[in-house]
Amino acid sequence: MGHGLKNTRKSREDMDERRAAVEGFSGARLSTIGNCPFDPMLAEKNIENMIGTVQVPLGFIGPLRVDGDHAHGDFLIPMATTEGALLATVNRGAAALTASGGARTIIIKEEMTRAPVFRVRDVRHARQVVAWVDEHIEEIRKIAESTTHHGKLLSAKAFANGRSLFIRFAYDTGDAMGMNMATIATQAASEVIQDKTGAVLISVSGNFCVDKKPSALNYILGRGRIVLVDAVITRKVMEHKLKAEPELVAEACYRKNLVGSSMSLSYGFNAHVANMLSAIFIATGQDPAQVVEGSMGTTTAEVVDDSLYVSLRLPSLEVGTVGGGTRLPCQSEALSMLGCLGSGKAKKFAEIVAATCLAGELSTMAAQAKGHLASSHKALGR
Amino acid sequence: MGHGLKNTRKSREDMDERRAAVEGFSGARLSTIGNCPFDPMLAEKNIENMIGTVQVPLGFIGPLRVDGDHAHGDFLIPMATTEGALLATVNRGAAALTASGGARTIIIKEEMTRAPVFRVRDVRHARQVVAWVDEHIEEIRKIAESTTHHGKLLSAKAFANGRSLFIRFAYDTGDAMGMNMATIATQAASEVIQDKTGAVLISVSGNFCVDKKPSALNYILGRGRIVLVDAVITRKVMEHKLKAEPELVAEACYRKNLVGSSMSLSYGFNAHVANMLSAIFIATGQDPAQVVEGSMGTTTAEVVDDSLYVSLRLPSLEVGTVGGGTRLPCQSEALSMLGCLGSGKAKKFAEIVAATCLAGELSTMAAQAKGHLASSHKALGR
Amino acid sequence: MGHGLKNTRKSREDMDERRAAVEGFSGARLSTIGNCPFDPMLAEKNIENMIGTVQVPLGFIGPLRVDGDHAHGDFLIPMATTEGALLATVNRGAAALTASGGARTIIIKEEMTRAPVFRVRDVRHARQVVAWVDEHIEEIRKIAESTTHHGKLLSAKAFANGRSLFIRFAYDTGDAMGMNMATIATQAASEVIQDKTGAVLISVSGNFCVDKKPSALNYILGRGRIVLVDAVITRKVMEHKLKAEPELVAEACYRKNLVGSSMSLSYGFNAHVANMLSAIFIATGQDPAQVVEGSMGTTTAEVVDDSLYVSLRLPSLEVGTVGGGTRLPCQSEALSMLGCLGSGKAKKFAEIVAATCLAGELSTMAAQAKGHLASSHKALGR
Amino acid sequence: MGHGLKNTRKSREDMDERRAAVEGFSGARLSTIGNCPFDPMLAEKNIENMIGTVQVPLGFIGPLRVDGDHAHGDFLIPMATTEGALLATVNRGAAALTASGGARTIIIKEEMTRAPVFRVRDVRHARQVVAWVDEHIEEIRKIAESTTHHGKLLSAKAFANGRSLFIRFAYDTGDAMGMNMATIATQAASEVIQDKTGAVLISVSGNFCVDKKPSALNYILGRGRIVLVDAVITRKVMEHKLKAEPELVAEACYRKNLVGSSMSLSYGFNAHVANMLSAIFIATGQDPAQVVEGSMGTTTAEVVDDSLYVSLRLPSLEVGTVGGGTRLPCQSEALSMLGCLGSGKAKKFAEIVAATCLAGELSTMAAQAKGHLASSHKALGR
Repeated sequence: MGHGLKNTRKSREDMDERRAAVEGFSGARLSTIGNCPFDPMLAEKNIENMIGTVQVPLGFIGPLRVDGDHAHGDFLIPMATTEGALLATVNRGAAALTASGGARTIIIKEEMTRAPVFRVRDVRHARQVVAWVDEHIEEIRKIAESTTHHGKLLSAKAFANGRSLFIRFAYDTGDAMGMNMATIATQAASEVIQDKTGAVLISVSGNFCVDKKPSALNYILGRGRIVLVDAVITRKVMEHKLKAEPELVAEACYRKNLVGSSMSLSYGFNAHVANMLSAIFIATGQDPAQVVEGSMGTTTAEVVDDSLYVSLRLPSLEVGTVGGGTRLPCQSEALSMLGCLGSGKAKKFAEIVAATCLAGELSTMAAQAKGHLASSHKALGR
Repeated sequence: MGHGLKNTRKSREDMDERRAAVEGFSGARLSTIGNCPFDPMLAEKNIENMIGTVQVPLGFIGPLRVDGDHAHGDFLIPMATTEGALLATVNRGAAALTASGGARTIIIKEEMTRAPVFRVRDVRHARQVVAWVDEHIEEIRKIAESTTHHGKLLSAKAFANGRSLFIRFAYDTGDAMGMNMATIATQAASEVIQDKTGAVLISVSGNFCVDKKPSALNYILGRGRIVLVDAVITRKVMEHKLKAEPELVAEACYRKNLVGSSMSLSYGFNAHVANMLSAIFIATGQDPAQVVEGSMGTTTAEVVDDSLYVSLRLPSLEVGTVGGGTRLPCQSEALSMLGCLGSGKAKKFAEIVAATCLAGELSTMAAQAKGHLASSHKALGR
Repeated sequence: MGHGLKNTRKSREDMDERRAAVEGFSGARLSTIGNCPFDPMLAEKNIENMIGTVQVPLGFIGPLRVDGDHAHGDFLIPMATTEGALLATVNRGAAALTASGGARTIIIKEEMTRAPVFRVRDVRHARQVVAWVDEHIEEIRKIAESTTHHGKLLSAKAFANGRSLFIRFAYDTGDAMGMNMATIATQAASEVIQDKTGAVLISVSGNFCVDKKPSALNYILGRGRIVLVDAVITRKVMEHKLKAEPELVAEACYRKNLVGSSMSLSYGFNAHVANMLSAIFIATGQDPAQVVEGSMGTTTAEVVDDSLYVSLRLPSLEVGTVGGGTRLPCQSEALSMLGCLGSGKAKKFAEIVAATCLAGELSTMAAQAKGHLASSHKALGR
Repeated sequence: MGHGLKNTRKSREDMDERRAAVEGFSGARLSTIGNCPFDPMLAEKNIENMIGTVQVPLGFIGPLRVDGDHAHGDFLIPMATTEGALLATVNRGAAALTASGGARTIIIKEEMTRAPVFRVRDVRHARQVVAWVDEHIEEIRKIAESTTHHGKLLSAKAFANGRSLFIRFAYDTGDAMGMNMATIATQAASEVIQDKTGAVLISVSGNFCVDKKPSALNYILGRGRIVLVDAVITRKVMEHKLKAEPELVAEACYRKNLVGSSMSLSYGFNAHVANMLSAIFIATGQDPAQVVEGSMGTTTAEVVDDSLYVSLRLPSLEVGTVGGGTRLPCQSEALSMLGCLGSGKAKKFAEIVAATCLAGELSTMAAQAKGHLASSHKALGR
């Protein structure tokens, strides 16, 4: 103790000392922040310079029925937010989905990626390096996997551009989100490539992974998990639960999510997937910065046989049920609400997350679609 | 009381009842979540179905010197995260920036947008509607501004495409992030446009705003605030604080942020802006889903006169110091740490956020750039 | 004469000498290329090292009825191509449009842009430069316009990023496509900015114009002309002329142009606009490399009142009726076919081009939509 | 004869009759267009409604040394354009490349794609269809390849989104550009998929191919051929041939091609690749509308060991040396100039095209970079 702002230790006393020093420096009173109901040592791997906690209101939506390959049944989903009306909105969509037999989910790809950038001498050198990697993939695999208990190297694909060479390593990271695992394994593999080929490792992340930035690459090829979810909502359920006819929602979806997002050249052809992701991610100890790529989804709605067909494609859903923030007290409790804490649960969790996103999409599109009705009676009909 | 999951009231007793019902439904124990150090009624406008709080570890980085138009001086920045090493990383960058005179920040545009989509009969009708809007902009302004105390309509620009017409309303929303204000004002304006022109309002958000989705539109034209920040770090400070020569960082930035992001067609030409945004947003009650557009930044680094010039352009930084989550106890305390709570503080806060992002960018690029050094001595030099 | 490959003069004898030298060098016989029915001196400003002409088959489609602000009536449109079936396809669409009262066209924006990139010292310097430009815009206008008879400077908007500053100059270039005019005027303006502000001109084109590259910038803000065109085709005409029901075409347009292009993150939400543009551009002496940005269009189709509503938005149509290749013999004859040769004709020409693109879109979508019919009778219906 | 505009036959007399009718309809004189030095029957598969030819000025650049896997030696490259200065510019770059040992080229991927869109019932149905395709890939291959002499099916990858399912078929199409071959084979394969799975073929092209539209998909995964080309130009050659120091060109390339194109969110990180492609494509009977995807290239320049390293990545170069426009008289002569007419020549041709593009890039960047020198002496130096 006694180092104030410079104290880097992790006990409650250290935390309190730092907070007092921050109060002294800034003149602010941080009494609520000081409330840390759990032992700060539990967060020692999750943060530095801890001075307390920020308490984010936590609620739930549901029951939401999910009819997936890994998630079956009705769930109460924890969501943390400060945006009023969000949970009410999602809840309404959940009720409509549940009344329709639930959201059907499938996972079509799973891999976590890390792509270092190397400096090569020229494009022929790039080709030699790529050939070396292809020929020694088993050796590279051994080195990469020697750094991890659970990670499996799935592929290492090269993309060359002048003197910059990107190799996108893809891993099965089990129930962990896997970014750190992928980074460590890739660093080891990259050093061997550097030693053997003369390619100089410039950065273990070459922005061809791509982590925490929106990208066409992940939109198209996926990262984390590609999850598809859909449902059919009868006209009756639409009108009863969502107060909007299927045609209205389909048109709103068409003009907003497709034409609108095409006009703004968005990588997100949806209404507000980021809201649901962000609230679940904070609640369950996921990495909230990965909402960025998670937000790149496409929501479609079509009138089929007098009902509304609605679907969501999430190409880059990066979640885990072990490691990272999932170890913390509240966050592990939140995962427990879903029966998703620990090993063997990541696929189930991914499906529940996707289903919740669909609930939010459906409800918001219905609300926006009917928002104009009250006042549109004087307007020219379609 | 007595409605369990269906209880929609807001007192602590209601919260506790709901949480007990969730425990009963799910079989999970939610004791830590149940710790809500503040009166849940304080969050009544921020969430529904509240069952407690999720406590996110909160730390600080700094002092970080900011030399902006609105923020001057040395700041301790609150950041909430569960990602170990993040704060240590940013802190290192902050030390380098502070030792270099601080991060220089300027704000070059401020507006919050909302863009409804209308259905028109055809492109000529679209043109008539646009002409009507242009001619009646003062009338529209009055109606829009009648819904708000602080919002000012700045412009209403039309983008037509077949039978879909998008009108992008831009507002000065003062110290509020302003999304709700913009939505309410736009709804009112849109209804008038509908009544007068026969254009049918399909959705008050037409994904041409664009909220919580990455988009070229906001990358280019901006939303919220466009903030630029830069700094010059001498070779000495680079080597002392960041252990990396300017040339290394400039090359990593070139190959990763420019070539790499061009190869993946990313809307983010940076290292990990989303990390800093997300940690500050959660700490200070911002909307964490808006990290999505916030993440679209460009970080550049160049060697100039033997020093490293580093800059960040954030085209879509959406923050506020009043309203939303800023009212909650911890979150307002966190803003107080910066002297940024309440009216008249949003510009200052935006500058501090941008400066913190630059600190994180600088530090991570240096770490990635030097990461290869230990092992690259055998590799072919440049 | 007598310099063979090195001969740089422009007469027919020079051309023939060069061609003979090429034959000698390469061993190829170039007798058809040698056929140049016009005096090569006529092309002296259009090419260097001329050895003859390439004769591209030229046909026409039409009559196509255009109901625009500048083009009225029925037109035969010249198209040069080597792609069999293209003209037959467009012709079929033209017949359907004409039978429906024609394609309705409007132009909603006109400006040619050139955007130099300057190196500035830092972001504050960038702001000073921008302020200087704003304050001296009249002086800049005079200098820019002093270089041209017809060009008018419309605006000069700055976009700053670290040490790179882009200023996008927009011009009214009358009936010329205007790229050269814009370049010369911008060079003059840029040199003044450089002299007065210390910003160093790095390139008169900073890829923020953006010429001959697809870009979100031009997709959203437009370059050349933004042209909208639409039409309503009755079910009867659809079935008679295009053998496809409105519903089929609307669905094909939805799944292909919107969902498909969203999935591939294309900047072209259309079927094959580039085909029509390219054939007309070659026929009429436009710059065929500008088909690149021209190809960024959105085609929509909706069933409205039992008819098919179809529209096309072309955000970046860059054409001219004076200067460049329009002076050459065949090319000026082709423009004459449309009554579009010379001054005062560019708007009319732009409308005809857009209408022709719509004809091609309509026809191809109908063909693709009905392509599955023959064989789909066994398949599960919708 | 005697049908005027309605005459659809192919002889010279028919052509002349049609042209006379066009003259009558439009009032234009089309005498130069009427000059068709070759028998119009030769173009019977290349165009309909032919009325003559448009004669595009044809020149050459070179000798350009190419040091590739398939192209070796010095070439004179035919280019057809109406844009004055283009050939002079490219020629200058060719001289610099040749003086530096030539442009080094490699091809790293070759495939032509066609991607139909099917309507499926829901995402589970999509999964079933994909599974069926994977299990029956040999059967699908047989059917696809039965429609073509030369095409080989390489892969068929599925991308699902709600009720829309895209299957991207990739072919080796030998020396043909291969679009028609791919379309016919894919149509046959798609009909089988439709019959066997209940997926309804909506369009044989689902804009996931992606033909003649810029797209992230092709930028990242490639279409046609992915070609890399680079060269090292010594300072002496730079100064002698291009009048620009390596540093100047590297900086212009950085601020324009990387920072500038990132700011405009362009899919083309180059200077003017479309110019070279378009001039070669017209000269040699390629499909000029495919310049659109061809234009998506990245040009980089770096100072290495006091020389300029320059490279170009062309991810979507679609060319052929048999079929299509290559059969026409001038166009086949132009291919002969390169020794690239007919079978076994497409790879060589692709390499020469890429090398020519690099020549144009190098020269234009040098010109733009030095453009500011004359007037910048008063400006603040770097």
